Amino acid sequence: MVTNKMAKYNRVTIIGVGLIGGSIGLALKKRHLAKEVIGVFRRASTLKRALKRKTIDKGTLSVAEGVKAADIIVIATPVSFIPKMAAEAAGHAKKGAIITDAGSTKKWIVAKTEKATAKRKTLFVGAHPMAGSEHAGVEFATAGLLEGSPCIVTKTGRTDKLALNKIINFWQALGAKVSVMSPAAHDRSIALISHLPHLAAFSLAAAVPVKDIAYAAEGFKDTTRVASSDPELWADIFLSNKKEVLRSGRMFEKRLRELSIALARGNRSQVVKFLGSAKSKRDKFTQPLL
Amino acid sequence: MVTNKMAKYNRVTIIGVGLIGGSIGLALKKRHLAKEVIGVFRRASTLKRALKRKTIDKGTLSVAEGVKAADIIVIATPVSFIPKMAAEAAGHAKKGAIITDAGSTKKWIVAKTEKATAKRKTLFVGAHPMAGSEHAGVEFATAGLLEGSPCIVTKTGRTDKLALNKIINFWQALGAKVSVMSPAAHDRSIALISHLPHLAAFSLAAAVPVKDIAYAAEGFKDTTRVASSDPELWADIFLSNKKEVLRSGRMFEKRLRELSIALARGNRSQVVKFLGSAKSKRDKFTQPLL
Repeated sequence: MVTNKMAKYNRVTIIGVGLIGGSIGLALKKRHLAKEVIGVFRRASTLKRALKRKTIDKGTLSVAEGVKAADIIVIATPVSFIPKMAAEAAGHAKKGAIITDAGSTKKWIVAKTEKATAKRKTLFVGAHPMAGSEHAGVEFATAGLLEGSPCIVTKTGRTDKLALNKIINFWQALGAKVSVMSPAAHDRSIALISHLPHLAAFSLAAAVPVKDIAYAAEGFKDTTRVASSDPELWADIFLSNKKEVLRSGRMFEKRLRELSIALARGNRSQVVKFLGSAKSKRDKFTQPLL
Repeated sequence: MVTNKMAKYNRVTIIGVGLIGGSIGLALKKRHLAKEVIGVFRRASTLKRALKRKTIDKGTLSVAEGVKAADIIVIATPVSFIPKMAAEAAGHAKKGAIITDAGSTKKWIVAKTEKATAKRKTLFVGAHPMAGSEHAGVEFATAGLLEGSPCIVTKTGRTDKLALNKIINFWQALGAKVSVMSPAAHDRSIALISHLPHLAAFSLAAAVPVKDIAYAAEGFKDTTRVASSDPELWADIFLSNKKEVLRSGRMFEKRLRELSIALARGNRSQVVKFLGSAKSKRDKFTQPLL
């Protein structure tokens, strides 16, 4: 909890103010962390909606104008735009400004962004706040979205130590529980823990005939909830972490096959053993454990 | 809504008073449907817990004693015990008593039970109230569990028409939305809509290494929620609907493979199309549509 009212930052700029960007803005303001929160938008209509929700103090359609004089720049656009946005922001940011992001994959984003910003005076430290929902858009943003949720901050050979600490501090100040790891380690973990459940949920919804959905109850509802997520957004996430997502998919298929074989053989004790071991793992998860 | 306070039934007996049986008892009492609700138990400890939660008026460990003079007998034990319990209940029930059940699979249960009760004076009509949660036990029972949830009642060549109508009426009186279909049609639908999500959730929890669970957020949480269900219970459900569960599993794997191939090829438009079609199906499900 931040108790003193002295703002930590003069200006924080958020590029892409949707569910995550908007929630960062609301948390910055609620926690009195920034004197000024600026939003950068692609469309005037989104700018209007973000201002209406009071997620930012001011908004602009110009990256150059938006990042000027910012201490911290957070890029919370869809994954595929992040490196390009970071490069553009770095070209206009003040010396010593630090750029972070909120992208769900890290290896691709961090490699591209480090390359694009290498000759700039700004520093980049990748991040992935693991909060969200199947709903997109600033209308669903809340000041509490990041509170208590895991946030992975990435460290590479090129990461500046001071900037790393400042970015760890930034996400912690927003209420997230920060872990530091390499982009590759992040992508492997996240493929399993986040991308794979989405892959499974989308495939599950795809497999069930519409006529049977009438009989669906809580089990179907929860298991497929994330299949209501934005297809464009998730296509980019899957594609930007393709190798690990496919690897996780194979691990999943292997287990599915194992359970199916035990079932086909009518081997009850093997089925019980499989389900029991899965249950004991799932029971470990009540709240994020960090 | 039942508004008159005249009880529909003199006595309803519930064999197996856990989450579902207990919720039936609570709903019968809340809606003033039965003058007396009797519970039949395997263990004295469960009897005590069910009485404490006021899910029944009286409890007994004897099937013979419990079903005596009952108008309706509901068997809400784990799936594998249902035919045996039904046969035992039929041997002691009064003439004209109707037996129904709450088992999640129907073909196996209905065939076995119809055979076992064929020479008795009692009538059997299978049912599957599609309500529940990953929690087991009478402690989680609520009067509202069945309210608005789908309930499939089965009809076969042997089903007595009057008994069928009485049982449809019974589940409707408890607040469920009843559909009538054959046991085979039930098992096929339910394999897809309920058993498959469980199969996927258990396999998903099994596929994720424990160390990565620390980074799990809402997506993992919801997608694997039902993997916290009771392994013994679900082994029996899967095994009693083996053929359809395996068939659903193959349909799911096919879709998973389809998505993985589009992803491996880096075919973004195909990935978006797949996810979009899955999303539009999932979005159809807000509440059960019956």
